[in-house]
Amino acid sequence: MKIEIDSKKVFINSGNNKEEIHPFWLRERINNEDALDKGNQQRLFDPNSINTNIYIEKIENEDGLLNLFFNDGTNYKIKEDQILNEYKSQNLDPISIDKIKWDSNFNNFQKFKFENDIFEKKIMYDLLVSFYKYGFVVLTNVTTEDNFIIKFANSIGSVRRTNFGEFFNVRSVPNPNDLAYTSLALSPHTDNPYRKPVPCVQLLHCITNNVSGGNSTLVDGYTVSEKIKEDYPEYYEILSSVKVKFKFIDKTVVLEDMSELIKLDEKNNFKQVRFSPRLDYAPILEKSKLDLFYKARNKISELYNSDKYKVEFKLETGDLLMMDNHRLLHGRTKYDVNEGDRYLQGCYIDFDSTEGKLRHLKRKFNL
Amino acid sequence: MKIEIDSKKVFINSGNNKEEIHPFWLRERINNEDALDKGNQQRLFDPNSINTNIYIEKIENEDGLLNLFFNDGTNYKIKEDQILNEYKSQNLDPISIDKIKWDSNFNNFQKFKFENDIFEKKIMYDLLVSFYKYGFVVLTNVTTEDNFIIKFANSIGSVRRTNFGEFFNVRSVPNPNDLAYTSLALSPHTDNPYRKPVPCVQLLHCITNNVSGGNSTLVDGYTVSEKIKEDYPEYYEILSSVKVKFKFIDKTVVLEDMSELIKLDEKNNFKQVRFSPRLDYAPILEKSKLDLFYKARNKISELYNSDKYKVEFKLETGDLLMMDNHRLLHGRTKYDVNEGDRYLQGCYIDFDSTEGKLRHLKRKFNL
Repeated sequence: MKIEIDSKKVFINSGNNKEEIHPFWLRERINNEDALDKGNQQRLFDPNSINTNIYIEKIENEDGLLNLFFNDGTNYKIKEDQILNEYKSQNLDPISIDKIKWDSNFNNFQKFKFENDIFEKKIMYDLLVSFYKYGFVVLTNVTTEDNFIIKFANSIGSVRRTNFGEFFNVRSVPNPNDLAYTSLALSPHTDNPYRKPVPCVQLLHCITNNVSGGNSTLVDGYTVSEKIKEDYPEYYEILSSVKVKFKFIDKTVVLEDMSELIKLDEKNNFKQVRFSPRLDYAPILEKSKLDLFYKARNKISELYNSDKYKVEFKLETGDLLMMDNHRLLHGRTKYDVNEGDRYLQGCYIDFDSTEGKLRHLKRKFNL
Repeated sequence: MKIEIDSKKVFINSGNNKEEIHPFWLRERINNEDALDKGNQQRLFDPNSINTNIYIEKIENEDGLLNLFFNDGTNYKIKEDQILNEYKSQNLDPISIDKIKWDSNFNNFQKFKFENDIFEKKIMYDLLVSFYKYGFVVLTNVTTEDNFIIKFANSIGSVRRTNFGEFFNVRSVPNPNDLAYTSLALSPHTDNPYRKPVPCVQLLHCITNNVSGGNSTLVDGYTVSEKIKEDYPEYYEILSSVKVKFKFIDKTVVLEDMSELIKLDEKNNFKQVRFSPRLDYAPILEKSKLDLFYKARNKISELYNSDKYKVEFKLETGDLLMMDNHRLLHGRTKYDVNEGDRYLQGCYIDFDSTEGKLRHLKRKFNL
């Protein structure tokens, strides 16, 4: 792929196709001091105030640096590489890291060791790349300072508060208002499917864990969705088209959102899973359609709960788990409160936090 | 529309159509004490653990209260009305309040007066309904306490923190890093189009405003989108299909997201507008397509900036503006710093906050 100049026009040549680049596209990218803020790279002009009837009057090419002279009297220099890079990245997922499917064989995943100032180091970049590949990451050797989870969240990006507050304590308590606050097993689920928007990433920080059970479990919703797509296309079709209602009711709030259990993007690729069988309400549909839906939901539940797709590990004191709540399901095995204490603190962040930090580090280390 | 019983089956009859309700749909709604938590209405069982081959063995109808006996030995009572209500609401927007289009003629909109404990009162319900109808609402007589905006946000739902912090101060400062922090005019825009997800609702609290300019301006992106759809279908088509990249670059973060300027939902209805002409980057497309895109973007910019669609009003000391950042554009007129001080505090919340409170109040006041 390369840039070509021909009769005062700029072309992009991909080998089998040569396409003129719109002169306004080039004009809009003017980078002179009075047009673009040096610091934040924001335009100092409104492109809608420029006449759209723009053309190029002269082009000088200085070893891949194009000097463009436009008919409205402006000119500036732009590198061919900048144009090519922007073109190559324009239709990609903003972070363009391919998801890697995994199942129970992935139990020996890499853990990352926490260190001071980690948020500005190369290891943070590696950790975030791993997070986008697998949907989760575990850090060890994290301080067990109370509320540190919030500091951690705000050092990547910004904590996403909910009506439960900035963070929540996962600990067995008397008269719990949720199964999470007991010592019972939790089957795989996604968090807050009734929220709009659904929090993107959950962080869980282990302050104390001296019981023998209470292992963390994770399932890759992407792997399971793709499996269903392959083996049970009818189920995949209905799970990705019927919207169920997720509900959460409390004294001062009634939260509801509707979504497919498998949410696809505009190109029919995997986008998000939601699963929380105590909170979901299928609509009244034709009986035959609901028949199929219930069978499909049973199948996805069976796979989510199967040992084949689950990794299981113990969060030790000082471990911190970060997981994609749009891609992964999480749960835990039961434990015995008489053996000791298990105390985790959790909170959420959104994708702008993880992506924003990842892009920053990529820029910083020229990766 | 009514419920009918026929040979141990439950039907929904809409007048011209009679459809059996799937017995599993009914079985899943079991509301006995050992099946449903009285407080949070959450299931105490996993419906995926029930055999899907469920049928009804006996139905007793006691004046619209159905007593259902299933083949797995369970039984419970459910009101016909509950089934009908769930059926009627199942495909509606979760809050089912129709948006009302408005333009500059709407300058005399109703303001709401703040009062103690407003968040649990009927007036809060009216205010939220108005917010969903018009996309914004103004409260007067709010305390001018510093940071009160955060208390306000967390009393509706939960503040949405960003990398700018929990809230931001809009005030003219020396060496500003954004036009917002000058006394210059701001043309209509949406906030944070580069964020993922984009904050849903912006709150702006006026602490001081003793300059003669600095009026707030609002434009209904829904009205303008519908206008373009009607008068310029080709522009509407390209604005709702070409994804542009929105960028925000700072020292410790690089935020990017891609979206159409007019975002439609799965049924091709209005969902969201984004507009921030200093931060958007159109992709390289065929020249003829970009030709059309730039013309279309010029047109929507022209309408957004036209006096025909804009309401303009002054936020007085103690006023609080709440606006839908997915629907509305906001801006301000310029002012003269030598005349006095203009000081606003702003923050964001999400739709789960406004919807969650609205549904709670609806339930509380039986509306």
